[in-house]
Amino acid sequence: MWFPVQTVCLRSRTVCKRGSVGAFLRCLRHLDANVSPFSHSAGRCSQTCQALVYRKHGDPSQVVQLEDVPLPSTGAKDVLVKLLAAPVNPSDINMIQGTYAILPDLPAVGGNEGVAQVIEVGSQVKSLRRGDWVIPRDAGLGTWRTMAVLAEDDVISLPNDIPLLAAATLGVNPCTALRMLSDFEDLKSGDSVIQNAANSGVGQAVIQIAAARGINTINVIRDRSDFTQLSERLEAMGATHVIKEETLRQPEMKELFKTCSKPKLALNGVGGKSATELLRHLQVGGSMVTYGGMSKQPVTVPVSALIFKNVKVLGFWVTQWKRDHSHDGRAFRAMVDELCSLIQRGKLTAPACTEVHLRDYRSALEAAMLPFASSKQVLIM
Amino acid sequence: MWFPVQTVCLRSRTVCKRGSVGAFLRCLRHLDANVSPFSHSAGRCSQTCQALVYRKHGDPSQVVQLEDVPLPSTGAKDVLVKLLAAPVNPSDINMIQGTYAILPDLPAVGGNEGVAQVIEVGSQVKSLRRGDWVIPRDAGLGTWRTMAVLAEDDVISLPNDIPLLAAATLGVNPCTALRMLSDFEDLKSGDSVIQNAANSGVGQAVIQIAAARGINTINVIRDRSDFTQLSERLEAMGATHVIKEETLRQPEMKELFKTCSKPKLALNGVGGKSATELLRHLQVGGSMVTYGGMSKQPVTVPVSALIFKNVKVLGFWVTQWKRDHSHDGRAFRAMVDELCSLIQRGKLTAPACTEVHLRDYRSALEAAMLPFASSKQVLIM
Repeated sequence: MWFPVQTVCLRSRTVCKRGSVGAFLRCLRHLDANVSPFSHSAGRCSQTCQALVYRKHGDPSQVVQLEDVPLPSTGAKDVLVKLLAAPVNPSDINMIQGTYAILPDLPAVGGNEGVAQVIEVGSQVKSLRRGDWVIPRDAGLGTWRTMAVLAEDDVISLPNDIPLLAAATLGVNPCTALRMLSDFEDLKSGDSVIQNAANSGVGQAVIQIAAARGINTINVIRDRSDFTQLSERLEAMGATHVIKEETLRQPEMKELFKTCSKPKLALNGVGGKSATELLRHLQVGGSMVTYGGMSKQPVTVPVSALIFKNVKVLGFWVTQWKRDHSHDGRAFRAMVDELCSLIQRGKLTAPACTEVHLRDYRSALEAAMLPFASSKQVLIM
Repeated sequence: MWFPVQTVCLRSRTVCKRGSVGAFLRCLRHLDANVSPFSHSAGRCSQTCQALVYRKHGDPSQVVQLEDVPLPSTGAKDVLVKLLAAPVNPSDINMIQGTYAILPDLPAVGGNEGVAQVIEVGSQVKSLRRGDWVIPRDAGLGTWRTMAVLAEDDVISLPNDIPLLAAATLGVNPCTALRMLSDFEDLKSGDSVIQNAANSGVGQAVIQIAAARGINTINVIRDRSDFTQLSERLEAMGATHVIKEETLRQPEMKELFKTCSKPKLALNGVGGKSATELLRHLQVGGSMVTYGGMSKQPVTVPVSALIFKNVKVLGFWVTQWKRDHSHDGRAFRAMVDELCSLIQRGKLTAPACTEVHLRDYRSALEAAMLPFASSKQVLIM
C-alpha cells in the first residue's frame, strides 16, 4: 500500500506498453481458458512450469496460489529461461493488492524482478546464448515462476560470475539508486546526499554507489531496537553518517555539518514529515527526489523553500526510465555494466536477503509485509 | 505576511549583495546621525527630499513616516533622479513587517519598485541622459521617496513613451510572469498554463503575455461578490478560461479540457489546497512553479504525482533571477525590451491601479493590506 492508484491514472497508458506485458496477459488469459501457450509467441505448449498466480486483488498471502501453468515451445526469436531467484518488492505487494500505478489484467503472475538462466535459444536469437544470465528489461514480466519463454528483447544479459542474490535484486533498487545519484544533481567527490529509508534496498544501494564515487551520505532511519547494529552495518557499507529520524530536528545536525557539506540532493522514500525534514537541510538550489512513500503521507513543502531556497521537488520511477529508454538499449546496458562492475569489485552487494523456496512463498509474502523488515525476501526456484 | 522569514536564512547572504542596498543602508545610518549623504557616494549634501522611512518593523501604517532626508550632490558615476511613481507590493509590506526573506537594516526607506526620471547625470555616466526613465535593477533601493542619487549601474532605462503606471509596475510582476512563462517549460502556441491568484499583478501579466504568445490560460480566482465583473475583465485581457477555486474539484473541469489542452505549467501564488488542486490538472511531466504563498499554507504534493506523473515542483523569485544575471545586463535588457514592446503594442497593460499621492501614503498602505484587493496602490510623487 505504498501508492493509492486512484490518485494517478496511468494504468491504461503504461500497462501494455511493452510487448512482454501484453504477451504475459495473453498467456494468462489462455491459461484460464486451459489452452494457452504461456508466452508471447504462438508456439505449441509442450510442457508446464510452476508460477505464483493471483486471480483477484487482495491480501497477497490469501490471493496468491502456486499453480502449474502451460509453457509453449520456444519461437525463433525467443529464449526459454529457468528462473533462478526473484525478490518480493513493495511494488509487487502493491500490484497484488491492486493499489499500484500499473496493474496487469487478471489472472496475473506476481513478481517484476529476478534473474533467470537461458536454457534454450530460438534460431534467430543473436544476443543471447545458453547459460547466459538475464534480467527483465521492463516491469510486468511475472518473475515468480520456475520457467518462461521470453522474447530476446524482453531481457538483458548479466555476467554470471556475480552473486545470485546481487543479480536477482539488481534491476530495480540499484538502478533506482544509480539513476537518482546521476541524473538530478551534478555530484562530485566530497559532495553530500541525504536520504531517509536508508535501510531499504534503494537506500543500501545509494550508500554503496555514493561511497564508490566519494560522495558523503547522511542516512536517516527510524529508531528501532537494533539501531546500533543496523547503523554499524550501514557504516560498514560506506555510510558517512547514520542518524535517527528525530535527529533531523535537533541541534546536533549543526555539528554534523561541520564535517560534511550540506547536501545537494535529498532522496525521499518515505514522504510526510520525514521528507519535509530532509528539505530543511538541503543546500540552496538543491533537489529532493521522491521514489517512494512508505509513510503514506504526501510531501509538504514550505513555500519559502521553493521561492527563497530554490529547492526542486521531483520524482523518479525506474519503470518509467526503462520505458523512456527502451528505444535505445545503450543507456540500460551502460547502467547494468556499471552496477555489475561495482559488484565484481566488491563495492556493491545485495541488500540483506532471506532466501525462501518458491513453495514456501506464503511465508515470504507475509514477511515482506511486516513493518521494519530488515531483510528482503527472495524466492529461490 | 506572505513568507515567514524564519523558515529560510538567506538574510545575511542577500541583503547586501548589490551596492545599491549597501549604499542605501549607509545613507540611512548617516541620516540617523544627522550628518549623512543620502547616497552611496560620499558627496556633499546640497538639498533634501522626502521619503517614507521606517525605524522599526511592525504594522506599516504605524511605523512608516514621511520624513525629509538629505540628498547628496551627484557623483561622476551617479545620476540624480526624480521618482515619478512607485507601487506598494506585498513584498514591501512584508519587509516593513519584518517577515520577508531579505530585510534591510533599520532605518530603511520603503518600496522596491518604481519609475524615476533622470534629471542630472554625472560626468562619467555613459548609458543614461537627462529625461530618461529608469527602474531599479535590484530590490532594496527604497523607492518611496521623491528624489535619489543613484549609481548608473543600479538602474536600467525604459522608453518614456509608455504609460506611467505600466513603467512603475514593470520591474517585479511582469518580469516574474515573463520568466515563469519562458524558463520552465517549452510552451508553444496552443499549449496551456493554469494559474491561481489570476487577479494578482503577476496573474494579470501572465494572462496578457501568454495571450500574446498564443498560449491558453486557465485562471483560478477565489469566489467573490464581483466574480462576473472580474472574470469579464480578465477575459478582456486575454484569459482563455476564468474559474472559481472550487471548480478545480468539480466535473466541469472535464468539459473545459475538451476545448483546451491539459496544462504543461501551473503557476502558484497561493499554496495550500489551491496548489494541490492545480497539480491535479497538470500534464504528465509538467511543472508547477510557486512564486507566492498568499494562503500562508505550504505546498502539499501527493507522492504518486511525483513518482508516477513525474511532476516537478519548483519555485521562482525574480529578485534572485536579477541577482543571478547582474554580471551580464543583456538578459535583463532583453526582458525589459520585450515587456516594453508588448506595452507599446497594447498587449500588456498595468494591473488595475489606484493612484495615491505620496503624502497620503497611510491610506495606500492600509488599502494594500486588505484581502481581495482588486487594485494595486501606486504612490505618485
